[in-house]
Amino acid sequence: MSDNNAVYIGNKSIMNYVLAVITQFNTQGAKEVKIKARGKAISRAVDVAEMVRNRFLTDVKVKEINIGTDKIENEDGKVVNVSTIEIVLTR
Amino acid sequence: MSDNNAVYIGNKSIMNYVLAVITQFNTQGAKEVKIKARGKAISRAVDVAEMVRNRFLTDVKVKEINIGTDKIENEDGKVVNVSTIEIVLTR
Repeated sequence: MSDNNAVYIGNKSIMNYVLAVITQFNTQGAKEVKIKARGKAISRAVDVAEMVRNRFLTDVKVKEINIGTDKIENEDGKVVNVSTIEIVLTR
Repeated sequence: MSDNNAVYIGNKSIMNYVLAVITQFNTQGAKEVKIKARGKAISRAVDVAEMVRNRFLTDVKVKEINIGTDKIENEDGKVVNVSTIEIVLTR
């Protein structure tokens, strides 16, 4: 779920990812944490960023948000485009 | 769906919104178009921005992306937080 200051949003509950972000800032002393997601998980990435900032770490700011498109192979082996987001939080 | 250079993402098909953005740039001569969405529609807002930029108006750039939280009243009259996104495209 998280490595080198990045938290990848999947299908777990949002609180899992909120805690992962808080852990990176508080326990691992990160100055910057990147929340990354693709496709439908993009909305949850924004939820996580907003929940961290509004309820837990009110001094954390959004430094930058990047969107993009990845090409992935779906179950049928077809290459499809999927949107991506990266929300960079900083302290 | 769209007013004063803003396109609000709802439940229609993505192409509706892609066309709305293209119309604002091409027909109404807008220099800037804002794609706005809340909750689960946030992922579709990113899809629309990426589809416009990759397939239709390749000179359009992402100027800025803002996220936030709105407080809305749900069907039971309870006030809940919902995430928001605003993607500012520019030419």
